[in-house]
Amino acid sequence: MIRSYDPRTGETVGDPIPPTTAAEADAIVRAAHAAGRAWRATPGAERPGGDGPSRARVLEAVADALDKNVEELWRVADAETALGEVRLRGEVARAAGQFRLFAAVLRDGGHVEAVIDHATAQPPVPDLRRMNRPLPGVVGVYAASNFPFAFSVAGGDTASALAAGCAVVVKGHDGHPRTSALCAEVIRAALPDEALLGLVWGREAGGCLVRHPDVVGVGFTGSIPGGKAIQAMIDERPDPIPFYGELGSVNPVVVLPSARREGLAEGFAASLTLGVGQFCTNPGLLFVPEDAGLLVSLAEAVAATTGGPMLTARMREGFLHELERLSALDRLAEGRPGEGAYAVTPQLFTIGLEAFAAALPRVAEECFGPAGVVVTYRDPAALPAVLERLDGSLTATVHATDPAEAEEVAEVLTRKAGRVIWNGWPTGVAVRWAMHHGGPWPSSTAPAHTSVGAAAIRRWLVPTSYQDWPAELLPPELRDDNPLGVPRRVDGTLTL
Amino acid sequence: MIRSYDPRTGETVGDPIPPTTAAEADAIVRAAHAAGRAWRATPGAERPGGDGPSRARVLEAVADALDKNVEELWRVADAETALGEVRLRGEVARAAGQFRLFAAVLRDGGHVEAVIDHATAQPPVPDLRRMNRPLPGVVGVYAASNFPFAFSVAGGDTASALAAGCAVVVKGHDGHPRTSALCAEVIRAALPDEALLGLVWGREAGGCLVRHPDVVGVGFTGSIPGGKAIQAMIDERPDPIPFYGELGSVNPVVVLPSARREGLAEGFAASLTLGVGQFCTNPGLLFVPEDAGLLVSLAEAVAATTGGPMLTARMREGFLHELERLSALDRLAEGRPGEGAYAVTPQLFTIGLEAFAAALPRVAEECFGPAGVVVTYRDPAALPAVLERLDGSLTATVHATDPAEAEEVAEVLTRKAGRVIWNGWPTGVAVRWAMHHGGPWPSSTAPAHTSVGAAAIRRWLVPTSYQDWPAELLPPELRDDNPLGVPRRVDGTLTL
Repeated sequence: MIRSYDPRTGETVGDPIPPTTAAEADAIVRAAHAAGRAWRATPGAERPGGDGPSRARVLEAVADALDKNVEELWRVADAETALGEVRLRGEVARAAGQFRLFAAVLRDGGHVEAVIDHATAQPPVPDLRRMNRPLPGVVGVYAASNFPFAFSVAGGDTASALAAGCAVVVKGHDGHPRTSALCAEVIRAALPDEALLGLVWGREAGGCLVRHPDVVGVGFTGSIPGGKAIQAMIDERPDPIPFYGELGSVNPVVVLPSARREGLAEGFAASLTLGVGQFCTNPGLLFVPEDAGLLVSLAEAVAATTGGPMLTARMREGFLHELERLSALDRLAEGRPGEGAYAVTPQLFTIGLEAFAAALPRVAEECFGPAGVVVTYRDPAALPAVLERLDGSLTATVHATDPAEAEEVAEVLTRKAGRVIWNGWPTGVAVRWAMHHGGPWPSSTAPAHTSVGAAAIRRWLVPTSYQDWPAELLPPELRDDNPLGVPRRVDGTLTL
Repeated sequence: MIRSYDPRTGETVGDPIPPTTAAEADAIVRAAHAAGRAWRATPGAERPGGDGPSRARVLEAVADALDKNVEELWRVADAETALGEVRLRGEVARAAGQFRLFAAVLRDGGHVEAVIDHATAQPPVPDLRRMNRPLPGVVGVYAASNFPFAFSVAGGDTASALAAGCAVVVKGHDGHPRTSALCAEVIRAALPDEALLGLVWGREAGGCLVRHPDVVGVGFTGSIPGGKAIQAMIDERPDPIPFYGELGSVNPVVVLPSARREGLAEGFAASLTLGVGQFCTNPGLLFVPEDAGLLVSLAEAVAATTGGPMLTARMREGFLHELERLSALDRLAEGRPGEGAYAVTPQLFTIGLEAFAAALPRVAEECFGPAGVVVTYRDPAALPAVLERLDGSLTATVHATDPAEAEEVAEVLTRKAGRVIWNGWPTGVAVRWAMHHGGPWPSSTAPAHTSVGAAAIRRWLVPTSYQDWPAELLPPELRDDNPLGVPRRVDGTLTL
């Protein structure tokens, strides 16, 4: 059974949810696939001034429904995540904002990447028109634990896949079953067909999802072993399908000698411990010059933080296990213990650059939770070779006042991470057009793609080229009159 | 040893090439990686009116070098492929054209997909700028047998990866070793550093390429077992990398009752037997109404074709083996035997729609070579359910005069193939902006991507987002003054 637990008490909340059987999962996927046919055929956007149905309008209705139900949503989520009202209200708003962003993406139409090459007589070349269309089936989504709204049933994978024109079946995360069920209910009420969003529970049902012939792509946010297990199942399919997994990120931060020290330690400590260190983007590695004063401020800043309950008992166990690995390093500071059954205490360790390099790669693995490693260096010229050996991350950050000083470090980090940050902190992922939330393995299994921001829709789109195709059968985006007014590349020239 | 054979005689040509040892392959990849650093830093395009170095200029120099050496290239290729002067001259021109298209892509700049979201004060959101950049390392390419120029050392994978800013190491195809070596020599002479294009030989070296830590992506055109073997090697890497494989395609053609019959049989026979049936896009399945006259014309048209030598002894064996499988069907026609040691004879089989459906999926597997299956149907309404069961293809074709009649069939086929063709034939892949040469498994392992046309460069690009990044360290495409004049999306609006 899937049980909901209160991280503050460790007690169960509400009734348990039975795991979905294979037969039930199959029926849910089939129903989603059937509902997906009409959804796929629904225009992404209404014609300018028109009032027909569109996927954009539905996404906006979903966003409105999430906003409207925020009171109940945050309370249900708080009871099983202990993330608190402010964070959870903010996250519902963010989830709603994601649906609205994808509505804007659909209205813009740039995501279909319409291209028209007219026929030429000499040399004789046919008329060719290309655009992106939804993957032809159901998208399977493994919900994440750490954002019960923004990376779960109501999250970016669901929003982007629905926007693309795909039905979605989510494998819910055991960490917030009641929130998941409520989100599914709220979203379904705003969909033209409630079967467009399926929800299954348990490991077996998750496997059914990945193996199901109607499932055409999988999104996942979770651990490296979890991601590898899904890839292995996909490889065994008669038709391996695209897999978009986000598997872990250590998010290095490099403080160069020219960096302003003011607020540095406090900023780091706040980013390290945000969400009890359960963000994908908490900074797990901080490279700083050898500077006793700076180490003292870092120690003081982390000592001033307070821990809190992690989301699940299992995540707490995982964190404590990873801490054992880090305990081989020097302990620099410990925060105040948090309260609650699943509470953990922020931890800060330190090691010199040479010893760090000698202990790679294990020393640089992600420790999911509020623990970080401060790596001290004497000579900044030694940094690039060590940074070069880090695994891929979602983010990498540079603190400096002199861009010239940062040039070499920046060159390495822009190859190691999908998002690079100057004099800031990696937590806080803006849902915008320019966001890239991805990077080299293990931060993503598909480094060309993002799970956050407007481009996330691309994961669920595939191009089709139409050769000499009759206008009657062309999608409107490729018809000569361009009724939806999408940007197009015509005979090699981008036109608006 | 890698030996070159003349398909007309079966005799060896020239000296054998020793397989590349693991140590040699490692050194070649490392040299490519080292050369790649400067290449990656070379601007894609020169500034308008500027005269600095650019990758676009180098690609144009490569194209010129291929054109200039066409005499020697086609002769060397003909001696080991027997494809003939006209085809091979045309293919050199096509390969050169691919390099020129990617130069145009770099000058246009749309491929970097530059996006700028300015900071906002309320809510407080940082400045975020995103663009595509080269995969950070060497691209490994497995050359195909069937296009010794356009899908081999001088092919689209090499051209698109160099355009993206990556060094390339090709695992040469045994079917045309001397052509491969000559192409590498010709291209290298036009590159700023000859190590930017490596060439290795043999299965072991191919494995080294896929497993090498400096290799960041692999392109492949070949068989399903070959593609699966590469995916398995990639899965075992500590950092699995993107894999773009094109593994096979049966390219169904559906003739609807309204189709014009004039020229139909001749068009099909020509497309079926083009290049001795060794194109990725030869039409292997033809669905036609039950019509004795049409079957007679198809039989006559194929009987009037002449076979020829396949590219290698192994491909001939493979073809003959697949023919055994098809010989369970009724034989409709046989072409005239071709001449030469590796010659095969065009073959046409037929089966009714119900029997075909009962024999799926085996009956619809690709038979690489000049053999096709004509599937006869009584009721066109029975077609969609059968077409639905086909594997993915690069192309699907409809012959009809009435678009309304084709609506349902077209809906299915546009989900089953990457390119759909109206009243034409699938052979002939135009190297253009609107081309999509990909599709669902097994036609591609990455259905969102194409191996031909302008968008092929995307396979070797990954986005980076720059948050509050100093202008001095931003790529020119993301600087406020946009010195390269690339199209950009600014605060959500596409601007030219």
